[in-house]
Amino acid sequence: MDNFTFYAPTYFAFGKETENETGKYVKRFGGKKVLIHYGGGSVIRSGLLDRVKTSLSKEEISYVELGGAKPNPRSGLVYEGIELCKKEGVDFILAVGGGSAIDSAKAIAAGAVYDGDFWDYYQGKAVEEALPLGTVLTISAAGSEGSADSVITNENGMFKRGASGEALRPKFTVMNPELAKTLPPYQTACGITDIMAHLYERYLTNTKEVEVTDRMIEALLLTMIQEGTRIMEDANNYEARANIMWAAMMAHNNSCGVGRTQDWTSHVIEHELSALYDCAHGAGLAVVMPAVFTYNMHHDIMRFAKVAVRVWGCEMDFEHPGRTAKAGIEALRNFLISIGMPKNFAELGAKEEDIEKMAHIACFGDVNTGSIEGFVKLGQKDVEAIYRLML
Amino acid sequence: MDNFTFYAPTYFAFGKETENETGKYVKRFGGKKVLIHYGGGSVIRSGLLDRVKTSLSKEEISYVELGGAKPNPRSGLVYEGIELCKKEGVDFILAVGGGSAIDSAKAIAAGAVYDGDFWDYYQGKAVEEALPLGTVLTISAAGSEGSADSVITNENGMFKRGASGEALRPKFTVMNPELAKTLPPYQTACGITDIMAHLYERYLTNTKEVEVTDRMIEALLLTMIQEGTRIMEDANNYEARANIMWAAMMAHNNSCGVGRTQDWTSHVIEHELSALYDCAHGAGLAVVMPAVFTYNMHHDIMRFAKVAVRVWGCEMDFEHPGRTAKAGIEALRNFLISIGMPKNFAELGAKEEDIEKMAHIACFGDVNTGSIEGFVKLGQKDVEAIYRLML
Repeated sequence: MDNFTFYAPTYFAFGKETENETGKYVKRFGGKKVLIHYGGGSVIRSGLLDRVKTSLSKEEISYVELGGAKPNPRSGLVYEGIELCKKEGVDFILAVGGGSAIDSAKAIAAGAVYDGDFWDYYQGKAVEEALPLGTVLTISAAGSEGSADSVITNENGMFKRGASGEALRPKFTVMNPELAKTLPPYQTACGITDIMAHLYERYLTNTKEVEVTDRMIEALLLTMIQEGTRIMEDANNYEARANIMWAAMMAHNNSCGVGRTQDWTSHVIEHELSALYDCAHGAGLAVVMPAVFTYNMHHDIMRFAKVAVRVWGCEMDFEHPGRTAKAGIEALRNFLISIGMPKNFAELGAKEEDIEKMAHIACFGDVNTGSIEGFVKLGQKDVEAIYRLML
Repeated sequence: MDNFTFYAPTYFAFGKETENETGKYVKRFGGKKVLIHYGGGSVIRSGLLDRVKTSLSKEEISYVELGGAKPNPRSGLVYEGIELCKKEGVDFILAVGGGSAIDSAKAIAAGAVYDGDFWDYYQGKAVEEALPLGTVLTISAAGSEGSADSVITNENGMFKRGASGEALRPKFTVMNPELAKTLPPYQTACGITDIMAHLYERYLTNTKEVEVTDRMIEALLLTMIQEGTRIMEDANNYEARANIMWAAMMAHNNSCGVGRTQDWTSHVIEHELSALYDCAHGAGLAVVMPAVFTYNMHHDIMRFAKVAVRVWGCEMDFEHPGRTAKAGIEALRNFLISIGMPKNFAELGAKEEDIEKMAHIACFGDVNTGSIEGFVKLGQKDVEAIYRLML
């Protein structure tokens, strides 16, 4: 196991009606003038935004609002939010929504106390300072509610890039699984896929003998398979939503990713798809993961056989472990198809003629250096071959 | 899943030589005058205490010392520590050792800023204030390094009781698995047993449909079986020590115990054994757990069958699930025997004639109300019957 540090000081309030306590938590973490940042209609239609505002007013906390956060959140709205914060003297950011609203809120939080262009942080500059931030979570997927990361798409060139820094970790997160039950099944399935991707990206490591984190990742994958299936059968199943909501946070707060190298190749390759076609991140990952894993499988057959046996219940073929490894990837693909995810470029709306361009940006784009350095080091030709496996 | 809150803001620095950074962390969390609290000779002999002191001096942090913390830590030393803190104007407590030194340090931290008798906290009063506390961990067992709990034995009457409160959670914990390698095998095995008990106490719940936390607990139990076996074969196996050290913390910081009722019957019943005979807590638990589980098994056969199949690899007997449940308990008992733990009263040094007295104290003692309210509600006659299963 590699040396590491781990620090996850987010306060979680989990369960029914917890959104009504939002004001109390903002107050506890020092917020007096809040920017509420959210996405679109559903947060308003469901009455959630009103309940959150009521809880703020009860604590005599004033607020301004900025709606319009979109999947694959864009830099334009971030600039707008930063300006609003500076003009209004905002001292606390409250994201109400899923990963898009939260990631966009994190970018605003960092930009509001920075003299330069916030995009610097998405070009590799470490985030060392930001306004404090809280979240009211409505979608189990991104894990941003418990992480120190944020991903934003720059409209100027369609680069989708991430920033990191402890200052981006939410002070508190309100998690009411009921808030997710009005999600369309497709979005629920995209969330399930994203969570499973966060687990696979950590599972695919070159660090040896990390059984404790291997086992925890496997536990969370098994949970996603069982509870993911249940929730697709019955969107109103509170218990399934609750299990998934906690699993999503645990999958990405890095308690099961410590002390080991991680992959993140599937995310890098997917980001080009959602930047170019604006497809849902989870849907892109469903197409990308089986292709990446098939291409990289031979780098460590036993690791892929392990997840196949322990998570997917495949029989171990002791004479031909490669067959077991492959069966595990097929099982993942079939599970993702079963919950309604696309399986190839055509179903995703991606185009073969863009492959070279996407592979080039993934390897040589604004901040990259000619290759993707994950579980396996991949050059542009490798990435092109991976995209071709998705045709 | 029940509503819950979760907040675990301990900073963990994990890996080789991390103890040399202790001073840096004390400084980060505001310590200027430190009480170093530790156990006995091994911390001195190994040079660890000197390395910690050097790291404090490097940051120009002054300190006083109090050694002598013992397994089943006693109230007498706590009073001594509290007095020392008040006399010397200590503003930060640093525990160097295992659960005993840490729990004793937590009691000192709470008592040093309290006008009454610190023992009030161990009689049910919530700990709302304490001096900030850091730990340098040398033994994987108690999980106190990441928890908000502390257990102390009152010499006056031999009551072993626990206190809880967020103020007791360490600000930071330094975890170098190498520090544990000089432990005698018996103590390593006691630690393994204690960690597994923390997992079982959470697993035995009356809350339905908590798959995510069930799976995480199973993952950590599986880790303990695999890595526990390895470490008993080779005390110098760094990787096994590292896996166990992280598993021990995860087993008790409550991330896998949220949203569900928990048991803690085995701990209550064991506390009477270690209070009376001063046996190692883990050794006591090894004798207690199989007896408690055998007695309570019929309350929820399927839960015991689940852990038997998923953790112990037992075949599910679909016609007679009770046979599977029992096989799982037998597998646990055999594993504990295999790592050198005692299996009955005789091997533990406990006496049949004390059963009635211990059962009475467990049920009616200083703070109890006539029964143990855990997975199954148990009266004195039940507890006596459980002790008799250990003969």
